[in-house]
Amino acid sequence: MGRIYNFSAGPAVLPEEVLKEAAEEMLDYKGTGMSVMEMSHRSKAFEEIIQEAEKDLRELMNIPDNYKVLFVQGGASQQFAAVPMNLMKNKVADYIVTGQWAKKAYLEACLYGKANIIASSADKTFSYIPDCSDLPVSEDADYVYICENNTIYGTKFKTLPNTKGKPLVADVSSCILSEPVDVTKYGVMFAGAQKNIGPAGVVIVIIREDLITEDTLPGTPTMLKYKIHADNNSLYNTPPAYGIYICGKVFKWVKKMGGLEVMKKRNEEKAKILYDFLDESKLFKGTVAKEDRSLMNVPFITGSDELDAKFIKEAKAAGFENLKGHRTVGGMRASIYNAMPIDGVKALVEFMKKFEDENLSRL
Amino acid sequence: MGRIYNFSAGPAVLPEEVLKEAAEEMLDYKGTGMSVMEMSHRSKAFEEIIQEAEKDLRELMNIPDNYKVLFVQGGASQQFAAVPMNLMKNKVADYIVTGQWAKKAYLEACLYGKANIIASSADKTFSYIPDCSDLPVSEDADYVYICENNTIYGTKFKTLPNTKGKPLVADVSSCILSEPVDVTKYGVMFAGAQKNIGPAGVVIVIIREDLITEDTLPGTPTMLKYKIHADNNSLYNTPPAYGIYICGKVFKWVKKMGGLEVMKKRNEEKAKILYDFLDESKLFKGTVAKEDRSLMNVPFITGSDELDAKFIKEAKAAGFENLKGHRTVGGMRASIYNAMPIDGVKALVEFMKKFEDENLSRL
Repeated sequence: MGRIYNFSAGPAVLPEEVLKEAAEEMLDYKGTGMSVMEMSHRSKAFEEIIQEAEKDLRELMNIPDNYKVLFVQGGASQQFAAVPMNLMKNKVADYIVTGQWAKKAYLEACLYGKANIIASSADKTFSYIPDCSDLPVSEDADYVYICENNTIYGTKFKTLPNTKGKPLVADVSSCILSEPVDVTKYGVMFAGAQKNIGPAGVVIVIIREDLITEDTLPGTPTMLKYKIHADNNSLYNTPPAYGIYICGKVFKWVKKMGGLEVMKKRNEEKAKILYDFLDESKLFKGTVAKEDRSLMNVPFITGSDELDAKFIKEAKAAGFENLKGHRTVGGMRASIYNAMPIDGVKALVEFMKKFEDENLSRL
Repeated sequence: MGRIYNFSAGPAVLPEEVLKEAAEEMLDYKGTGMSVMEMSHRSKAFEEIIQEAEKDLRELMNIPDNYKVLFVQGGASQQFAAVPMNLMKNKVADYIVTGQWAKKAYLEACLYGKANIIASSADKTFSYIPDCSDLPVSEDADYVYICENNTIYGTKFKTLPNTKGKPLVADVSSCILSEPVDVTKYGVMFAGAQKNIGPAGVVIVIIREDLITEDTLPGTPTMLKYKIHADNNSLYNTPPAYGIYICGKVFKWVKKMGGLEVMKKRNEEKAKILYDFLDESKLFKGTVAKEDRSLMNVPFITGSDELDAKFIKEAKAAGFENLKGHRTVGGMRASIYNAMPIDGVKALVEFMKKFEDENLSRL
C-alpha cells in the first residue's frame, strides 16, 4: 500500500520528503557512520543539529533575541505544571477555558495557587471563542493563559485576549507554524511537536527572558525549571535528540516552502475548500462559530451517529485515515496541518460529495 | 563512510538491523500508509506496538504480574524527582552515592524530605562500590536508592544492598537488559532508554503495584504521578511514540539473540577482552576496583593527559568513536552495550595494542 491521506489530529502527517531524508540518513548521518539516534548529545554533529533547528525556528517565527527557545520533554501536559511552578510568583493566574486542554491546564494550576477562570465557552460545548477584549483580569495575576487553537473543538483565537498588561501564556501546540505570529505579544508559548512540527516527545517552549528566574515554587522538579534548560541550551540532560532532528528537518521544509506567510495562504486555501463545502452541504455541517474556525482542525457532523460511523468507515477504506472526532465529542474531524497537501483536502471533499449523494436519502 | 564503532556512553550504538528495519518502514509502517511518527497514539497499529513492546520486555526480564511497566518521558533525571514525589510518604529516604547520578538523585530528593546518604564511594572518586551488607538504613525510610551501574565511573553493584526490608529503588539506565535480574528484589527500577534500549526521550519504569498510590506529595505534577501512567497504560497523554517503537524493535532483537542469559555471556566475553588487556598493558590501565567493574562502561587511562588526548584523536581517525571519558573525569571510556559487536571490542584492543607499541616510550 502507498501513502494514505492522514487527517490525524496528532501525531500527524509529516512532509514526505522529511521522512525520505530521515530514512536515507538512518544508518549514517552525513558521513558520521552512525544514526542520529546513536549520537552523543554532546557531539559536534548533534550540537549542530540542535543549534540549526533553533536558528531556523527563530528565523521562521521572527523570534526576538530576548526570547529563549527551549526543547523539552513531557508533552504539553507537563507544561500545564511547569507554567505555574515557574511563573506563579503571586500564586494567582487567570485562565480562559475554551476546551479540554485549557481546562486541564487550569486544573493543574489549581494545585499551585489561585487559578481563576475569567472566560469560558463551556456553555456551548466550546464551539466558539469568547469575547476577550475586556475581561476581569486579576490585579495580581502572574499571567493570563489560553489554548490558542483548540484541537478537539476546532476553534482558534483570531484576536489575542487583552491581558491588561499581564504576560500571555499560550498553548500553541496545534497552530504553531501555521501562520506568522507576533511573538512579542506572548510571555510564553509552548507546543507539543506532534502536530505541525515533528514527532511526539518534543515540546518547544518560547519564553521571554525576564520570565525565566531562579524563583520557582518550592518543590519544582529540576527538569521542570525553565532556567535549567535555558542556562544549558536544552542540554541539561539528554534531550529527545532524534525528535529534535526531525523537527529541524520540518523547519527546513517550511523555510523551503516559503515560510509562514506562504503556509498561511496555503492553509487558508485548504481550509476554505473544506469549510465552503460544509457550508453548502445538505448532509455535513461544521460545528463551530464561523468567525472562530480553526485553519488546522475542522470538526463536522452529519447529525446522525449511524451515518457518521458509516462515513468514517468508508472514508478509511478509501484511504482517508483518522477522520473520527475526538473520543470525547464524536462526529468527524479533519486535521489539515501544514504537511497535509491540498490534494488531500480536495480528494476528501470529493469523497464527501460522493458520500452525500449516496446517503442523503438516509438522513 | 560506512558504519563506525561507536563507544558512546549514551545515546549509544543500536543494533544495525533495528535501524535498517526502521529505515524501511519510515514511510509506510506495515501497510498502514504512514510512518509510526505520524500515527495517532490511540490507533490500533500503535496500541499493538506499545503493547507488544511491553509484552516482550516482560518476557525478557521475567517481570512478575504485580509489577507495572510504564513508558514515560523526561529522562532518568526526571525520575530523580518522581521517585520521592511518589514514594516519600514518611519524607525519609536513604541514598547510596556511588557517582554523579546517584548524587544528583540524592540532591533532588532533598527538595522533598529528609534524604540521607547511608554509604558513599566519594572518598576514592567513586572507583568502587561500598560494602552494603549492613548499612544504617533509617527505620522510617520510604526506600533505599542506588544507581546500579555507574556510567561515568564504570562500577556496578554485583550484589544488591541489604535494604533491611525497605523497597529498593534503582536507576538501571546503563545496565538494563545487559544480564538477567530478579525483578522481585526491586521496588522500582527505571532506565533512560538511550543506552541499552533505544533512542533518548523514553524512560522505562518498572514498579511494584503496591508502591503506586494516589497519595503523592502535594504539588506533584500530574505527569510525574506513577498512578496516572499506570492507570492509562502509558497513554495518559501522547507518549514518545517513535522512541517506543524503536525500543520494541530492540526488545525483539534481544529476544532473537537468545535473551538476557545470552546477553550476559556475550557482555562478559566482550568485557573480558578489554579488561584482560588493561590488566596486562604497560600503557593503559583500568580505574576501577576489579570486583566492581561494570560490564557496560570501561574507563581507562594512560596516566598522561597528553597521551590520552593523542589516543582519543587517533582512535577517532581509525573509526573508534566517542572514547573520550565523561567531561567531568577525563581519560577514556569504552561503553560496550548490548549492541556493540564483539568485533568492535576486538578491533579496539588491537588498536590499543598498536598504540601502546608506538607510544610506550613516550610515557
